[in-house]
Amino acid sequence: MTVAAALRNALGDIVDITEGSLEAARADRSGHSSAGRPIAVVHAETIEHVQQVMRIATETRTPVVVRGAGTGLAGAANAGPGEIVLSTMRMNRVLEVRPDDLFAVVEPGILNADLNTVLAEHGLWWPPDPASRDISTVGGNIATGAGGLLCAKYGVVRDAVLGVDVVLADGRLLHLGHRSVKGVTGLDLTSLMIGSEGTLGIVVGATLKLRRLIVGEICTLTALFPTVRAAAAGSAAVTASGAQPAIMELMDAKALSAVHALLSLPLPEVGTSQLTVQTDGPAAQAEADRIAAVLQECGGEVTLTSDRDEGERLLAVRRSMHGAMAALGTTLIEDVSVPRSALPAMYDEIARIEKAYGLEIPTVAHAGDGNLHPNFIFEGDVVPEQVWAAADDLFRSAIRLGGTLTGEHGIGMLKSRWLAEELGDDQWQLQRQIKSVFDPLGILNPGKVFTSA
Amino acid sequence: MTVAAALRNALGDIVDITEGSLEAARADRSGHSSAGRPIAVVHAETIEHVQQVMRIATETRTPVVVRGAGTGLAGAANAGPGEIVLSTMRMNRVLEVRPDDLFAVVEPGILNADLNTVLAEHGLWWPPDPASRDISTVGGNIATGAGGLLCAKYGVVRDAVLGVDVVLADGRLLHLGHRSVKGVTGLDLTSLMIGSEGTLGIVVGATLKLRRLIVGEICTLTALFPTVRAAAAGSAAVTASGAQPAIMELMDAKALSAVHALLSLPLPEVGTSQLTVQTDGPAAQAEADRIAAVLQECGGEVTLTSDRDEGERLLAVRRSMHGAMAALGTTLIEDVSVPRSALPAMYDEIARIEKAYGLEIPTVAHAGDGNLHPNFIFEGDVVPEQVWAAADDLFRSAIRLGGTLTGEHGIGMLKSRWLAEELGDDQWQLQRQIKSVFDPLGILNPGKVFTSA
Repeated sequence: MTVAAALRNALGDIVDITEGSLEAARADRSGHSSAGRPIAVVHAETIEHVQQVMRIATETRTPVVVRGAGTGLAGAANAGPGEIVLSTMRMNRVLEVRPDDLFAVVEPGILNADLNTVLAEHGLWWPPDPASRDISTVGGNIATGAGGLLCAKYGVVRDAVLGVDVVLADGRLLHLGHRSVKGVTGLDLTSLMIGSEGTLGIVVGATLKLRRLIVGEICTLTALFPTVRAAAAGSAAVTASGAQPAIMELMDAKALSAVHALLSLPLPEVGTSQLTVQTDGPAAQAEADRIAAVLQECGGEVTLTSDRDEGERLLAVRRSMHGAMAALGTTLIEDVSVPRSALPAMYDEIARIEKAYGLEIPTVAHAGDGNLHPNFIFEGDVVPEQVWAAADDLFRSAIRLGGTLTGEHGIGMLKSRWLAEELGDDQWQLQRQIKSVFDPLGILNPGKVFTSA
Repeated sequence: MTVAAALRNALGDIVDITEGSLEAARADRSGHSSAGRPIAVVHAETIEHVQQVMRIATETRTPVVVRGAGTGLAGAANAGPGEIVLSTMRMNRVLEVRPDDLFAVVEPGILNADLNTVLAEHGLWWPPDPASRDISTVGGNIATGAGGLLCAKYGVVRDAVLGVDVVLADGRLLHLGHRSVKGVTGLDLTSLMIGSEGTLGIVVGATLKLRRLIVGEICTLTALFPTVRAAAAGSAAVTASGAQPAIMELMDAKALSAVHALLSLPLPEVGTSQLTVQTDGPAAQAEADRIAAVLQECGGEVTLTSDRDEGERLLAVRRSMHGAMAALGTTLIEDVSVPRSALPAMYDEIARIEKAYGLEIPTVAHAGDGNLHPNFIFEGDVVPEQVWAAADDLFRSAIRLGGTLTGEHGIGMLKSRWLAEELGDDQWQLQRQIKSVFDPLGILNPGKVFTSA
């Protein structure tokens, strides 16, 4: 009996072998596709479904690729020939909201934004806010260890998960973590699962650490600078001043003009780069005033508002970045992260790489936390060698500046060849051995993260 | 050649076999001692020293117990016959402070309070504040995954470490983690090391995530309640109100009278329990007023001050708890943690256990995060069976209420027999397998955490 038949026997209609579904599972939002169609997409609706899939996969030694909404940017959820796709999109319930204890228990398939709609009714929110929050699942956020715009002030996914329920490669179900604020019983396997990109187990539930909705004003300001270096220096000065913006985004000149073109706004002067800053909480206005002063001192041309709609309009320019890039061609969105004071130096490196490889690399940065997204634009489906060579140079520059090759997108298939370089061979081997403890047969997302160079 | 001789050959004077040092290494602050003296205490001064010890330990299959200041409360650093003690107390330098990037790189032996003295000169601090902060090392804080009083607002150790340098059992040195705010390259082995209690490797360096010193007022208030249940309900009401105290500590009647006796203060009325709350940051006064109102509504008799000295005087009552308990006899300080709304129910359980086992169990709680420290007092060095029976009942009650058997002290040797019960057999086995990847010979802190029941 084929694997598809075994799945169909055991699971019936939730096993999907329609061409459209199989094709869709080949790619994520990275623009990268697998070599061909997978065997089947299983639309799991229960933990038991996930366990049955894993038991069949173990019996038949069939690789399994877990998939949420497919919004990843590193190819971690791309499935190919001979692989089962295990979709957790239908497991999308909020099982429990505990306002007094500031946690919620959810299934992995719920969209980040939908979860926050439910939580808002209780006066609560879950802080991680990847740019994809309207379309990405909480399970995917956990699998990648996602970040977002608000991280410098409110933390990343790793800071916002108390526990996860996990189905292992052989189908056993484990409950990792705890429901209390503190807990140090045994090794912290919850953190180990966060960012493991489908290589250790299937997250089928999560206990999320919540915050109360921030009350009071939100102030938004933009500051225009004549060069990206000046803008980066401005953001570093804000961090150094001790102010704590909720959001601080930097758009270089190429990014800014591309968005202005997309939104039919008047084009900024050549070279103009922009910082967009938002403050919230009880000291929102005082902090915004202080940040405005710092940025003016750094030569920024500041616009400040405490009107929410006007603030959203200012932030919309930053939020339109992906659209603006997509309008220019196929995009490889990179994701290096450096210590915040190294931001200006990293922009210098990007300028050097642009020249050296004859490329334009529009770049936005979560300047509050030092995470940059340089965009490589090209024609067609395949990343040109010239772009990979430039990306290679970019990664090495980030590591040299004390940074890392991925701040929030993960390794997936696109960056696995650089993994050992950053980790060092000893740590890379150790990580592979840990993966083998969870997945002795190597059926969980093979070819992702831990492939050799 | 004996192991001691091999160590002395390789390392000279830093190998200490004096009776006093060997005796001291048998116990931590739990009141529990190992069966006898270890082989030697090595006072490592460099990473190379640590590596040499581990190479000799691996060659000779000799167990190694890492030790900081020995302030642990679960016996994790207690060393016995046939074991090498590896002390990192002399590795106590601050290697780097980066105010603009909000991180510092330190050696493990620095005391938490000494680190914060250095950081204060830069306007910075490292938030974890275990009650032992004046006498406990950062390395020990990391090894236990320590918490403290400020955790509900400012997080635990896990939230405040970006990376660790680790010497493995075979002497290899690994650099785990990153220096940037965000970073998801590979598995999160930094988190895995935090709270691993010396079973996975030796932490020889740490990159710590810092905060700027909080400016502005600090407001302190106490609220007296006629019963501990009323006080616990008051703290739950504060959490539910959305206020965010920096500190919220609960002392039950037995704890409060013991401290009053120690400090020669007038004895409170029978049954009186106390909440001590501190607020800080830009909204300190507004939040203190709001919390005072909530507690008064719950029947609390509130004293509020924004004078710092007066605030410290109020808080001193809570800080004298350990001294007050020590004055009564040998203390087994327990450490269960529950979801915050379960605090009143947990106090009911403690009252039930006191009656059932004929014991008095003075209890303080970090009420802001649901972490309780019930104190069992007895005569002599050995925990009586009756006390263990009551502790067993306590752990099961906490787990039943959705909690965990240790919030911040760790498993060590004192709680290893309950570990599998909380984790479940499958997870317990998985954790042991991960331990074996790091330590295939089983020489790192054997008999701690992962012993069988």
